[in-house]
Amino acid sequence: MSLNSSSDKRHAILLVCDGLGDRPSVGGKTPLQAAHTPHLDALSDAGINGLMDVIAPGIVPGSDTAHLALFGYDPYRHYPGRGVFEALGADMELCAGDVAFRANFATVDEQLRVIDRRAGRMGSKELARALNGLELQGVSISLVHTTQHRCAVVMKGEQLSKYVSDMDTHRAGDVLQDCKPLRAGEAERRTAAIVNAFVKRSYEILNEHPVNADRKRRGEPPANIILLRGAGSYEPVPSLKARFGVSAACVAGASLYKGVAKYLGMKLIHAEGATGRADTNLQSKAEAALRALKEHDFVFVHVKETDNDAHDGDFEGKKRIIEQIDQELVARLQEADAYLAVTGDHSTPVSLKRHSSDPVPLVIRGEGVRRDRVKNFDEISVASGGLGRIRGVDLMPILADYMGYYIMYGT
Amino acid sequence: MSLNSSSDKRHAILLVCDGLGDRPSVGGKTPLQAAHTPHLDALSDAGINGLMDVIAPGIVPGSDTAHLALFGYDPYRHYPGRGVFEALGADMELCAGDVAFRANFATVDEQLRVIDRRAGRMGSKELARALNGLELQGVSISLVHTTQHRCAVVMKGEQLSKYVSDMDTHRAGDVLQDCKPLRAGEAERRTAAIVNAFVKRSYEILNEHPVNADRKRRGEPPANIILLRGAGSYEPVPSLKARFGVSAACVAGASLYKGVAKYLGMKLIHAEGATGRADTNLQSKAEAALRALKEHDFVFVHVKETDNDAHDGDFEGKKRIIEQIDQELVARLQEADAYLAVTGDHSTPVSLKRHSSDPVPLVIRGEGVRRDRVKNFDEISVASGGLGRIRGVDLMPILADYMGYYIMYGT
Repeated sequence: MSLNSSSDKRHAILLVCDGLGDRPSVGGKTPLQAAHTPHLDALSDAGINGLMDVIAPGIVPGSDTAHLALFGYDPYRHYPGRGVFEALGADMELCAGDVAFRANFATVDEQLRVIDRRAGRMGSKELARALNGLELQGVSISLVHTTQHRCAVVMKGEQLSKYVSDMDTHRAGDVLQDCKPLRAGEAERRTAAIVNAFVKRSYEILNEHPVNADRKRRGEPPANIILLRGAGSYEPVPSLKARFGVSAACVAGASLYKGVAKYLGMKLIHAEGATGRADTNLQSKAEAALRALKEHDFVFVHVKETDNDAHDGDFEGKKRIIEQIDQELVARLQEADAYLAVTGDHSTPVSLKRHSSDPVPLVIRGEGVRRDRVKNFDEISVASGGLGRIRGVDLMPILADYMGYYIMYGT
Repeated sequence: MSLNSSSDKRHAILLVCDGLGDRPSVGGKTPLQAAHTPHLDALSDAGINGLMDVIAPGIVPGSDTAHLALFGYDPYRHYPGRGVFEALGADMELCAGDVAFRANFATVDEQLRVIDRRAGRMGSKELARALNGLELQGVSISLVHTTQHRCAVVMKGEQLSKYVSDMDTHRAGDVLQDCKPLRAGEAERRTAAIVNAFVKRSYEILNEHPVNADRKRRGEPPANIILLRGAGSYEPVPSLKARFGVSAACVAGASLYKGVAKYLGMKLIHAEGATGRADTNLQSKAEAALRALKEHDFVFVHVKETDNDAHDGDFEGKKRIIEQIDQELVARLQEADAYLAVTGDHSTPVSLKRHSSDPVPLVIRGEGVRRDRVKNFDEISVASGGLGRIRGVDLMPILADYMGYYIMYGT
C-alpha cells in the first residue's frame, strides 16, 4: 500500500450530525423524512448516496468509537478509552502511558451516599483549582473543569492502567462504590488504589471549601466530591496527515469531539458560540469551517444537538434542529469549492432514546462522484443509492481518493 | 464491547427455508418469483428487505456452517465439524475432546466392495444396538440410529482428533477405502486406526446378524457395514444467551439443525409430524413456534423441504413448497406479537442441483424497522431494499438490537 497524491487536489468538508439516523415513528416517518430539508435533498440529488454501518452491522456505536471509525481508524485497534478524548478536548497535555478519566462533581452525604450525581449540574473553576496538582503515591494528578458539572482528570506516573472500573453508579441514593481493578495486575491494583485515594481526598478538600459553604447557604447542592469514569490510556497514533496526506481541521463545540480530533492531529478551529448545546451558533460554525478551508484540505464539522433531542425522545425537536442545520449550515457549506459529505456518527432513534445499530445515511457531493437516482436525504431513500452499504472506516479512504490523496495497493 | 438490554424488550421469530435462494430458470423467473406468496409479499411490503451473503460473497455455504453464521457465530472460528451437530441432533451427550461422526449403514460384498452406499436407505434400531457401546483401544464408541440409513457415532477417550478422512466413497462399486490421518500427529494416526477397526468390527457383527439374514431372505440389501464421515471435535461455545442475552428455542425436523441449535444452547421444541421431509407438518411447526414464544425470546423455525426439491432439480416442487410455507407457516407466524425474519441458509438453484453462493433474500418485519419500497419477497426485488447487502453473521446482532438486547462498543 502506498500513499499518493494527484496534481489536481481538492478540499473536503465532512459534516457529522450526532445521532442523526433514526427509525420511522411519528406519521410512519423518521425525523429526517419529516423535516423540510431543501439543501440536503439537493445534495442527495446531485451526489452519491448510501448507508453506513459506522462500526459494523448490528453493533451499537458509542460516540467516541464512532468518530475514530469515521476518520478511518479501526476502533477495535485504536480506541484508547473515553477519558483520553475528554482530557485532550479540555486542552490537557498527554504523554504515552498517562491515564485519563472523565470526571464530574457530585453531591454526597456524610456516609458517602450519592445525593446528586451531577451536583445540580454546577461545577466550579475554583473548586477544580483546589484539586489540581495533587500528588499521591508518586503520581501527579491534574484536574480541569470543562462544562457544567464536568471535568477531565489526568494521572502521570509509573505503572498506571486503564483497566479499572467506573465510580459513577449512574444512580442517586447508592453508597459510593470503590474503583476496582478489572484485570489481575499490579498496575491495575495500584491505579484503582490511587483513584480511591484521590476521590477520598477530593471529599476532604471540597466538603470544607468556602465555595461549598456558600452553596449550602444558598440551598444549592454542594459539589463536594469528584467521581471518575471512562479510564483511558494515551498512546500516540499516526495522524490523519500521516495516514492520508491531508491537513485536517475541526469545528466542534463539545469536548469529546475536539478530543478525538486532537488525538488524530487535527487543528482545532474556534467558532464563536459553538457550544454543543441547543443555543449553539450554527452560522458561526459554517463561517469557521469556510475560513478553515483556506488553510486545510479537510474540515470536520460536528453538530451535537440532533443527538441531544433524540436522547430526550423529542421528535419535533430533532426535526427542527435538522431543518436548522439544513438552512444555516448546509446551505452555507455547499457554497464552498470542496467535496461535501454529510452523515451521522450513529443512529439515536427518538423512539428508543438511546443509540442503535441502524446504519446512518450518507451523501457525498462533488466533482466526478457517480450521481445516482436518489433525490432525498433520508434513511430509506439513500438505501438504493450508488454507495450501497459501507462501513465507517471506508469513508475516509473514499473521501481522500476524491480529494486526490489516494492509497494504492499494487501497480 | 458490552451487552446491554433496554427495559422494553421484544420477541423474534427467524424462519429459515433451507436452500431458498435460486437463479432465474423456468420463464426467466426464480421459484420464489414464480410462486404465489401473498403473505411473504405482505411481509416485504411492511418490512425492511435485503440480500445476505450467509458466509461471504462467492463462498458456497454448507448447511452447517450457514446456520452457525445465521446465529452470529463466525463459521471459520466456531465450526466443530459436521459429526458434532449430527450427534447432538441425535440427542447424544458430548464432552470436550469427544470426536463425533455422521455414519450410515451400507451394503458391501465379501471383498468389501460397496454395493449400496445406503443399504437400500433402510437402517435398523436393532442393528444399531448391536454396535452401540463397543470399546476399542480404550475408546468407548456410541452409535445411535437417526433416520433411514443414517446414524451418528461418538468416540470418547484420550487423544482423539477430527483430522481423519471420510470413509464414504460416494460411489458404489469401489472397494472400501481405509480412513486416513489428515495431519501428521499421533492423535490422527490413532483415531484413523480406531475408525478402521470399528468399521471392520461392524462388518463382522452386522453381516452375521439375524436382521440381515431376514433382509437377504426378502431380497433386500443387508445393512452389513457402517461407514463414517464428517469427523467433528466437540468444544463448548458461548451460548446465544451468553452472547446476546436472549433465551432461544428451535423448531426443526432434521437432526443437523437440531444439533446446531443444541450446540448454541437453544431449547429443542417438539412439533408433531415435523420430519424434515416432504410429508412434514408445517401447521404443527407454526403452532409449536407460537407456543415456544411464550417461554423464549427468540424462536428459530427451520424448513428443509425447499432444499430437497432444489437438489432434485424440481422447479415446480420448490415453487409448490414455497407456496405451502406462505399459506401454512408465514400466514400463522405473522400473527405473533414478535419480529418476524424470513430467509434461507443458502441458495440451491434448481438449475444446478447444488448449493451456490448467490446471496439469499431476507425480510424483517416488526416495530420500528425502516420500511422500504420493496413490495415482493424475491431475490431480485429485495436487492433495492433498506438492508442493502449484509452477511450472515450480521443478522443476529441486528435482530438482537431490534429486540432490545444490544451490543455496544464505546460510550
